[in-house]
Amino acid sequence: MIIDAFLTPYFPETENQFENSLVVMIDVLRASTTVCAALNAGAKEVIPSDSLDKAVRIYNSLSREVRFLGGERNGLMPQGFDAGNSPFEYVPEKVKGRSVILSTTNGTKTFQKAKNAKHKVVAAFANNAVITEYIKILLSEYDSGDAKLVFLCAGTNGRMSYEDVLCAGIIIHEISQIYTDCTITDTADAARNLYAFNANDMKNFLMKSDHAKILAAKGFEKDIEFCLTMNTLPVIPIVGSNTIRALDI
Amino acid sequence: MIIDAFLTPYFPETENQFENSLVVMIDVLRASTTVCAALNAGAKEVIPSDSLDKAVRIYNSLSREVRFLGGERNGLMPQGFDAGNSPFEYVPEKVKGRSVILSTTNGTKTFQKAKNAKHKVVAAFANNAVITEYIKILLSEYDSGDAKLVFLCAGTNGRMSYEDVLCAGIIIHEISQIYTDCTITDTADAARNLYAFNANDMKNFLMKSDHAKILAAKGFEKDIEFCLTMNTLPVIPIVGSNTIRALDI
Repeated sequence: MIIDAFLTPYFPETENQFENSLVVMIDVLRASTTVCAALNAGAKEVIPSDSLDKAVRIYNSLSREVRFLGGERNGLMPQGFDAGNSPFEYVPEKVKGRSVILSTTNGTKTFQKAKNAKHKVVAAFANNAVITEYIKILLSEYDSGDAKLVFLCAGTNGRMSYEDVLCAGIIIHEISQIYTDCTITDTADAARNLYAFNANDMKNFLMKSDHAKILAAKGFEKDIEFCLTMNTLPVIPIVGSNTIRALDI
Repeated sequence: MIIDAFLTPYFPETENQFENSLVVMIDVLRASTTVCAALNAGAKEVIPSDSLDKAVRIYNSLSREVRFLGGERNGLMPQGFDAGNSPFEYVPEKVKGRSVILSTTNGTKTFQKAKNAKHKVVAAFANNAVITEYIKILLSEYDSGDAKLVFLCAGTNGRMSYEDVLCAGIIIHEISQIYTDCTITDTADAARNLYAFNANDMKNFLMKSDHAKILAAKGFEKDIEFCLTMNTLPVIPIVGSNTIRALDI
């Protein structure tokens, strides 16, 4: 098995690069966590859209009772949206049974990558334990030596974000303890080491990271605190061609 | 002061992004080390060229006595070249007083970035101590709070290479101990932490890295061993608009 990671969405992209891969998509602050919150609150699906215009078009094509429009630009809710990008806004009273159209600056672009991947899931700190268990199950279905586990970190405006890298790092740490003979690329190993280096004080460490500081300056301390807390939303988001749905568990 | 780093040449590029910056370019295996070797052996200059064609055109435009054509594609010397990308090929008998045209897969692209930077230098393990001292001198000339120190790591075919990141990490570690109130981005801090994490066994650690394994498979063990050794080539390569020259010291 190979474990690889991309710390930002900027990398050389080639045809069929992720074919047969198990791809884990991560944007801890806040798209990944918001997807988990929406699905955990009973949303039928999350439809990621990289452009605001496209998000509004999808919204307008759906009937009033089933649609919910959420997202952010530069951290803030666009005008006319039902919600921003705070996981606290995605509660059962608002989203249960609905299609949540979500357009965020960094995360949704990432969720739409890796078209040819065999499996795509969304990870956050909020669903870390269950998503790791599910990744183990998916990997067990591959022929030995044939699996490729790839982490796509959203980062912030094209730059590396520590919270995404450490979230990948925890999972890489777990999986590499089982698959002891796997090949780990420099990038994936860096994520694992950066997690191991900060495992004892991860939350405090991440509160001082670039993206947390940007969001804190905009008043999102409560979101940051929640997004950096482990295992609050035990949901497994599966990314399909146009939509993200929770695995029935 | 801000300390930032880019772990690969893939990142969002904007006009004037590096204006007023002190940019440190790093491709340890092997372009950075080869530049240091050539200049330390008395080459008049190194002219980096991202394309082989352009390298040959520059070569043909120079007189026979002063020209020397070196480089690699996929690690190997292109046909008709005077040398590959091994620092051992750049000895005084071959390059003293000459213009070395160097075309390598990853490094030369990096050396040509950051057009608007105020200062650009090339770092490797081979010149780590002297380049760190020179960076300190350059930083002392900035007004307090105004400096931006940026590390551009070449990586390997668009992917992160541990040896470049740890080479940046040593320098970031040194500088951040002096400028204790500087802002360090997540990426630069990651480089520093990855170095700190492996400082006691750096060379052994790097021998197992992605790029070292690729080069070892091609028979370049001697180059790897040399490129990962500290402070063998006490030279300060200054990157100009088209050429890299050694600082007179």
